[in-house]
Amino acid sequence: MSTPDTTALPADTLQRMADAIRFLAVDAIERATEGHQGVPLGMAEIATALYAHHLKFDPANPTWPDRDRVVLSNGHGSMLLYALLHLTGHEKISLEAVKHFRELGSHCAGHPEYDPAAGIEVTTGPLGQGIANALGMAVAEAWLNARYGADVADHSTWAFVGDGCLQEGVGQEAIALAGHLRLGKLTFFWDDNRITDDGSTDLSISEDVAERFRVAGWHVQAVDGHDIAAVSAAIAAAKADPRPSLIACRTIIARGIPRLEGQRGGHSARLFKEDTDAMRARLNWSHAPFVIPDDVLEPWRQTGVAGRAESRAWAERIAALPADRRAEVARLFEGRMAEGWRDALAAFKQRAADEALAQPAIQTSGDIAALLCALMPEILVGCADLEAPTNHKRTLSAFTARDQSGSYIHCGVREHVMGSMANGMAAHGGVNPLAVTYLAFSDYERPAMRMAALMGLPVKFVFSHDSIGIGKNGPTHQPVEILASLRAMPNMLTLRPADAVEAAECWEIAMDRRDGPSSLIFARQTLPSVRRAHVADNLSRRGAYVLAEAEGGERRVTLLATGSELPIALDARDRLQADGIPTAVVSMPCWELFDAQPPDYRAAVLGTGTARVAVEAAVRFGWDRYLGDNGGFVGMEGFGASGPADALYEKFGITAAAVVAQARARL
Amino acid sequence: MSTPDTTALPADTLQRMADAIRFLAVDAIERATEGHQGVPLGMAEIATALYAHHLKFDPANPTWPDRDRVVLSNGHGSMLLYALLHLTGHEKISLEAVKHFRELGSHCAGHPEYDPAAGIEVTTGPLGQGIANALGMAVAEAWLNARYGADVADHSTWAFVGDGCLQEGVGQEAIALAGHLRLGKLTFFWDDNRITDDGSTDLSISEDVAERFRVAGWHVQAVDGHDIAAVSAAIAAAKADPRPSLIACRTIIARGIPRLEGQRGGHSARLFKEDTDAMRARLNWSHAPFVIPDDVLEPWRQTGVAGRAESRAWAERIAALPADRRAEVARLFEGRMAEGWRDALAAFKQRAADEALAQPAIQTSGDIAALLCALMPEILVGCADLEAPTNHKRTLSAFTARDQSGSYIHCGVREHVMGSMANGMAAHGGVNPLAVTYLAFSDYERPAMRMAALMGLPVKFVFSHDSIGIGKNGPTHQPVEILASLRAMPNMLTLRPADAVEAAECWEIAMDRRDGPSSLIFARQTLPSVRRAHVADNLSRRGAYVLAEAEGGERRVTLLATGSELPIALDARDRLQADGIPTAVVSMPCWELFDAQPPDYRAAVLGTGTARVAVEAAVRFGWDRYLGDNGGFVGMEGFGASGPADALYEKFGITAAAVVAQARARL
Repeated sequence: MSTPDTTALPADTLQRMADAIRFLAVDAIERATEGHQGVPLGMAEIATALYAHHLKFDPANPTWPDRDRVVLSNGHGSMLLYALLHLTGHEKISLEAVKHFRELGSHCAGHPEYDPAAGIEVTTGPLGQGIANALGMAVAEAWLNARYGADVADHSTWAFVGDGCLQEGVGQEAIALAGHLRLGKLTFFWDDNRITDDGSTDLSISEDVAERFRVAGWHVQAVDGHDIAAVSAAIAAAKADPRPSLIACRTIIARGIPRLEGQRGGHSARLFKEDTDAMRARLNWSHAPFVIPDDVLEPWRQTGVAGRAESRAWAERIAALPADRRAEVARLFEGRMAEGWRDALAAFKQRAADEALAQPAIQTSGDIAALLCALMPEILVGCADLEAPTNHKRTLSAFTARDQSGSYIHCGVREHVMGSMANGMAAHGGVNPLAVTYLAFSDYERPAMRMAALMGLPVKFVFSHDSIGIGKNGPTHQPVEILASLRAMPNMLTLRPADAVEAAECWEIAMDRRDGPSSLIFARQTLPSVRRAHVADNLSRRGAYVLAEAEGGERRVTLLATGSELPIALDARDRLQADGIPTAVVSMPCWELFDAQPPDYRAAVLGTGTARVAVEAAVRFGWDRYLGDNGGFVGMEGFGASGPADALYEKFGITAAAVVAQARARL
Repeated sequence: MSTPDTTALPADTLQRMADAIRFLAVDAIERATEGHQGVPLGMAEIATALYAHHLKFDPANPTWPDRDRVVLSNGHGSMLLYALLHLTGHEKISLEAVKHFRELGSHCAGHPEYDPAAGIEVTTGPLGQGIANALGMAVAEAWLNARYGADVADHSTWAFVGDGCLQEGVGQEAIALAGHLRLGKLTFFWDDNRITDDGSTDLSISEDVAERFRVAGWHVQAVDGHDIAAVSAAIAAAKADPRPSLIACRTIIARGIPRLEGQRGGHSARLFKEDTDAMRARLNWSHAPFVIPDDVLEPWRQTGVAGRAESRAWAERIAALPADRRAEVARLFEGRMAEGWRDALAAFKQRAADEALAQPAIQTSGDIAALLCALMPEILVGCADLEAPTNHKRTLSAFTARDQSGSYIHCGVREHVMGSMANGMAAHGGVNPLAVTYLAFSDYERPAMRMAALMGLPVKFVFSHDSIGIGKNGPTHQPVEILASLRAMPNMLTLRPADAVEAAECWEIAMDRRDGPSSLIFARQTLPSVRRAHVADNLSRRGAYVLAEAEGGERRVTLLATGSELPIALDARDRLQADGIPTAVVSMPCWELFDAQPPDYRAAVLGTGTARVAVEAAVRFGWDRYLGDNGGFVGMEGFGASGPADALYEKFGITAAAVVAQARARL
């Protein structure tokens, strides 16, 4: 079939196409009695220029890997996206769905919710996340392009961006890093409407935003955002430039509604029938609510079918690849692991058990990651300026402006964008992102981790320096509450292995997981081996298991521990056993997996009727679930201190003697 | 007394003063076997220029309110600060303390830990926090100066800043906002050494940092950071300019150590005796470790006594103020509340009970804040572009570049710097900061909240939109795990009031608190009155209390709830009572306060031997502490959804019927 030539559409048709976005948006928002009209009314022409003349997409095959990616970073303007997806013919965004905007069960939720099959590339809403996701998508594309050629990946990433996204720190980090990495296929459309929720942008910003992008190495253009031809020309220029592009689109918020356009209320003031009537009169639109006339719908649908030829051509190019290359590309886009990865982990695990491997836990994680990276080039590692202490670079070459085939991204001291771009990479597909930093700095990327959990993206968040065990750097660098805060997050697996064997098991769990993120948490210090008898089973997969059963009679005490505190629990067990008290030690690398086990298993592990004491160099919060009414806890009650690790464990009473005392008090 | 004229010091004396910083730093780091020499060696001349010629400080009176503030934002370079504090004669930073750098109990911790009496203005370490704190300090000074005149406050804020601080999003937010607010007495010394922990800054940044500041409206100078006279001249120019100033100091990391200077290892590679010996030879320094010769120590001590006259003059000016003004200034700097504040809250509380006040919870919080702000002008409210929906502006005028006497700071969509600047304001003193945003966005400022908790600063973090009760904006805007993550944080009071009466009580608790931050958490939706019988006692002060006791017999069921779920618990109680099951409802606005109650009180409230069910529109994580072995929970198991609030409560089963069923299953 031939591609319809939507570039030849007459200007008045294009304008009516833009107005169709406007009316779908306001009709849905009026019906819902709430929503944000500012964005769809202000960016209708921009979106029309993009979709009608430039965007590579195929609504009949919305998950085609080589499609352009579109991110609505100003996610509150969700009706812009829904209108576009409906008009271009994305099945899941039906007219019914649009009519039920913001109602329970509609695909048209208050903010866009990740659903690639519907054309929604990422969940957006918390400002700044979307553009950082877009950066990650552009990295994924650039890497695939550099590694596998333009036949496999050659597409652009486009983001609709509001003032808020650019004020957010994560947005500023994205600007700096995208310019530095020279991601030439990334383009932002800035909705320069001079209005935020509070009122004029003058209230909170006085810098020249365009100039800020230029400083960061971006290609910058400024256009009238309501001039479709001008926006289209700017898009063409953006595509031709090797730098990332900002198209600063001067717009009028809520354009079309006399009462609200250019006003603070344009952002999200409630719309009434008088408003939509007035807009109909102003724009000469005689159609009833939700009615799009054929002479407007048809050209929109043509833009949607234009990409079909391209998606088919891509499939043909892939089919024509040599068999091994074709298989690898298929594996990448299906998100499958490379053959042999599980064997490699198993071999590592066996060696770790046989040799009683004892080394800094984060080094073990680095060893494992290196094994996996050697098998799977698509593992892209981002790190926030901690290459040496977090130990996950090894043989990887850097992804740079000059060489985008590298697998290690120096993110700079920018944890937040590191996490958000990992989300974008995972949403893009074809790559398998890790993000590495110290656990204490996980708070900096927590908004991104929440989005990964919400979207169900298989991002691996790797953390080092996981407790007071780091010692002298002091309480700023010593997490005490962060394990709890991660365990509290729905759909986040929090894995804290105790030694190299558990590390291999936890990595296997994280790599297997396809429907959500994992936090892999490692100590900086050396962890002795606690799993010296090799078993093929992944014991960590059940979340918790009996590491050392009670001996010499029925179990009277159950000691629970994770990570670096297992040796303390084992020492305490030795002392209790020596006193004739049968004591078991349970290792609990992952609470979430344990909670999902059958009740019988959980009861058997925790030991019904036994005295229970948990030991973890962190706060008690959350542990009571396993301790029951009379359990004991040995851990932290507040923040840490600066001093040698041994002295800190002693100072805070996290010792075998304390565990023994707590257990004895409960017998 | 006359001020010693340290401006007349010969250049070679000044250079030896700078070298004294170097040697104290490397001797301490060598002894500790770890530390970060890059900053003290690279910034020794900059610090000397500041302290010898410009800084207003009095080591004999380190907490004098009108002192200049110094923030070491690159906190890993802590030995720079300790060397300065010791050399200038701050008692708490003794030579013994320096010798015991990084040892448990030393004032010279791995990173600077907040202790104004020692000269440590804020805790730093997590990058970017310090400069954002400095911004808050500059706001506090500017406000005090604008309101009370230069006789009361007229000082500068200086920050030592590394590349990492400027890469962090929070640092970028600080740059933008400081320029916008035209904080002319704020100066950053950028340690432009072109090296980060990973290696060359080229790895992760390619923008012109100085230009980025210019874009944001800063006064920018570039100097040789090892030229004391040049730095001093730049400081003088910075003071004269009405804009905030960046002094970009080109430096050589680890300058003085032949093996490391200018190298990646200069940052923090381990120092050995050969290194310090080589530095002694290079710099012609013949003194033993930790020995500062008198001809160097004496001029340093003179810089330290120079400010004494100024601190005395300030005290005399304050003493000469009219009595009412003097009393108010004293109140501000002592951090005391204004007379009548408690009565105002009590009156509000009584009215709320009498009228059964039912309105959006965040509006109630705004009402209360307005009462307090009317009595206490020093309450400065920061808000992240949510003026209307968070409702805490009311009659406050804005703090702007033109009028710095305003009390409401439009922070823009920059939650992180909002939190960090609130910390800086609280550390500065004289003002009483609030930071307001949606609860879902608390993650964006969580690193700042952690620092407030760690430092024990009395910042009030106010949050709206606290659950699925917000409805149609969907899961991105619906906190479910955030209550748990805040409750897990040591030294953070997490307050979630159930109605207007509890809101007044919780505000009273937060305002009374001087040794740590509070999170005040409010629903967006209307909360009905549950406390209709006025009692003078602040029942919330005990954290949890029996709101409705069981009737018609011994209590068999205890229902626990917070915030918007109290009405559900009360409804369930009515149903259970109607079926003859004596049921109590416990309101738990603050877990941390409840945990601090005597065991008897806790047991009486929770009801020994009763069936317990908790209801909260959030995850269960943490609740087991109160539920015991067989407790029930009605709440969220994952993220929310987009739809009307009523439909969401129904969808997720957070209903009185579910509470009743859970209770019955436990009888």
